[in-house]
Amino acid sequence: MNFQLTQDLINEIEILIDVKNRLALIQKCENLLAPDIAEIIEVLNLNDSKYLFDVLDDELKADILIELEEDLREKLLENFSSREIVEDVIDNLESDDAADVIQEFSKEKQEEVLSKIVDRQQASDLVDLLSYEENSAGALMAKELINVREDWSILRCVTEMRKQAQDVNNVYTIYVVNKNLELIGTVSLKTLLLTPEKTFISDIYNKQVISVKTNTSGEEVARIMNKYDLIVLPVINEKNELIGRITIDDVVDFIKEEAEKDYQMASGISDNIEPVDNVFTLTKARIPWLLIGMIGGLLGAQIIGLFQIEENPILAFFIPLIAAMGGNVGVQSSAIIVQALAAKNLGLDNWAKRFVKEFSVALINGLICCIILFIICTLLYPEPKLPITVCLSLLTVMIFAALFGTFIPLILNKYNIDPALATGPFITTMNDVIGLFIYFSIAELIL
Amino acid sequence: MNFQLTQDLINEIEILIDVKNRLALIQKCENLLAPDIAEIIEVLNLNDSKYLFDVLDDELKADILIELEEDLREKLLENFSSREIVEDVIDNLESDDAADVIQEFSKEKQEEVLSKIVDRQQASDLVDLLSYEENSAGALMAKELINVREDWSILRCVTEMRKQAQDVNNVYTIYVVNKNLELIGTVSLKTLLLTPEKTFISDIYNKQVISVKTNTSGEEVARIMNKYDLIVLPVINEKNELIGRITIDDVVDFIKEEAEKDYQMASGISDNIEPVDNVFTLTKARIPWLLIGMIGGLLGAQIIGLFQIEENPILAFFIPLIAAMGGNVGVQSSAIIVQALAAKNLGLDNWAKRFVKEFSVALINGLICCIILFIICTLLYPEPKLPITVCLSLLTVMIFAALFGTFIPLILNKYNIDPALATGPFITTMNDVIGLFIYFSIAELIL
Repeated sequence: MNFQLTQDLINEIEILIDVKNRLALIQKCENLLAPDIAEIIEVLNLNDSKYLFDVLDDELKADILIELEEDLREKLLENFSSREIVEDVIDNLESDDAADVIQEFSKEKQEEVLSKIVDRQQASDLVDLLSYEENSAGALMAKELINVREDWSILRCVTEMRKQAQDVNNVYTIYVVNKNLELIGTVSLKTLLLTPEKTFISDIYNKQVISVKTNTSGEEVARIMNKYDLIVLPVINEKNELIGRITIDDVVDFIKEEAEKDYQMASGISDNIEPVDNVFTLTKARIPWLLIGMIGGLLGAQIIGLFQIEENPILAFFIPLIAAMGGNVGVQSSAIIVQALAAKNLGLDNWAKRFVKEFSVALINGLICCIILFIICTLLYPEPKLPITVCLSLLTVMIFAALFGTFIPLILNKYNIDPALATGPFITTMNDVIGLFIYFSIAELIL
Repeated sequence: MNFQLTQDLINEIEILIDVKNRLALIQKCENLLAPDIAEIIEVLNLNDSKYLFDVLDDELKADILIELEEDLREKLLENFSSREIVEDVIDNLESDDAADVIQEFSKEKQEEVLSKIVDRQQASDLVDLLSYEENSAGALMAKELINVREDWSILRCVTEMRKQAQDVNNVYTIYVVNKNLELIGTVSLKTLLLTPEKTFISDIYNKQVISVKTNTSGEEVARIMNKYDLIVLPVINEKNELIGRITIDDVVDFIKEEAEKDYQMASGISDNIEPVDNVFTLTKARIPWLLIGMIGGLLGAQIIGLFQIEENPILAFFIPLIAAMGGNVGVQSSAIIVQALAAKNLGLDNWAKRFVKEFSVALINGLICCIILFIICTLLYPEPKLPITVCLSLLTVMIFAALFGTFIPLILNKYNIDPALATGPFITTMNDVIGLFIYFSIAELIL
């Protein structure tokens, strides 16, 4: 099975919705999974999506909802009463997804929905999940998990698990707690399968358990799960009590979003936008960086105005080269640092060591570029002082840009500002302006 | 437990290695996991890493090896005989990791190592894994899995699983096959726990199973696992027989690498480099894009040379602005498309629709920038025709750059060339050159 969203399929579904053929729609969706139907709903117009959504059964509805973008989800739920939201959606979701859905409502609506939940444990779990800061381990975790006590036998363990497993969709790891409910280890399902029934958990459990606190950041959760190849990560509170677990699928989304965010920053896009978004959204996400670029360009014009370019108009020829190279070197340097900061992969080099290294790289690259440039310039422009001016400027600009590109993200990071801010248009624009100043200053000295 | 790589820890370990205190080293590593020790080994000098590596037990050695960079792994293994590689490393790894290790050897060494494997099934599994193209599903999968027959009862199933589970490190899903060994469904461990022992698998298994063929690309594997929130994905051959499974941890690395690769391309870095790499590696990864930028700069100089800039030296003032804005708009547009292509998230818009949309966005952004620029220019530069020239050029350049930025990655993708190539220095440089040409042409017409 391999679902493919095609215009033909959409046309077919639109016709079935037009003629209100509910049965045929249900049949069409029967072999599809929730993420596939979510893709279909995303391309239909709102009335059609509502009709199709309404036709499906509750469990499928809930699974589809969590696949959709926030605003579409809101629109599909707008005619649902609080009771319907609980019975059709919340009751069919694991606690982390349920909390994500409720999160988006207004404070009043949240309370109304929570008050309609019959199971008090479920309601208090959700209140707990809603209380954590966004993107913290507490907000990412689900409450459903299987835990066993260290003094139980395998037999008792399996019996208890039968009870607990009803609430948990996917069972990967079983957590071992002591009398105080503190997390002390794990047992794999494989070990349970291979061990005689009378053995005690305390004799077989794995004591090397990696866990996070509720306030651990999402970035850190992602880094830990990725580093140790974990499928599930237990979450503990201040008293070391096991209170939830984070599954890898939620973290994969997080890892992807983080990587995309850095990429977007470097490319000068301020929001998480997609080509399918409307013209207004696309414009809004792009204009801030363009304005920064424009201010940089105007500053550049002012700097050129400081010098007597009419005396040496040939200097204008190399403005694009100097500006572009400053920008390119700066972006390269900052990208390397931003990636390393994200991966916590900076090693143990201190700032002095990094300065020497970055300076060396820039010097070598600069010298290579300058030698080539000098030969070409000498051939093209017979004025003897021009190649020297241009090459000397290029070398200086490249070294400056490399050091700026390296240290600005490091400094931002030190003050807990997202270092990715320093990449892209910001660093390019700054290097443009500084580069022009260096270029014309050197030209004034030499020519 | 929360491991932190510190200079103090490294110093301590270096001292223990100096005085050859094996026991203390083993104790130091006792509470650490393989990825932690790998981090330590990566910062030690080669002789020290060899000493530390040698001290550890075989299972840990194998787990550490697969965490290391390829070249360090090679160096640590260089004194190992083929038999030692099999007994100390290969036998302690799952088949996918074992294949990764063998992959790096020369063809002769590969054959020598494979010939030393005692278990014929294991050897033929590895030969099979080595035969698939890099980054295909076949190369990503592991051979170890638990499969049961549809006509078995739960009781028989559990007995058989006890046998099979010994080979499989982590058990997440049990695969159901028919008499011809064709994959027909899955059973979760949860269902096994909750179902009476005499029930037959055929009555309880889930028929909606998503699988991939051995030649499915790594990108597609990542997309499917991410979309359907899968922890494990079964791999089938041409006859629909189940032959392996891919686990999410391998795919998380893949997703991260892909995202990082796009980011690096956009930033003009050609290799997967890190700040800890040496000066030569860092230089090599950066120089190609710098040379492209320099050629662009020289072309820009030639274009300016085509026009009589000495007649209107004030035109030089706006060269940085025009060049920078063309570059910024181009990078924005291409980044949006590259991300959407990677996520297969382009929706159903056709090229004509996309053209209209991209044109509209560029026009609106361009008009906003032009109005602001016109006001500032009129205030700063009293020459009446200059603001008109600059603004008209800026608008034209922004629209051109947006369309280039959008369609070049789409065209590359159509011809199966990595669209990310179009981002970063390449598109910036091209837009610089075209932008300058547009600017001076318009200036010649108006001034």
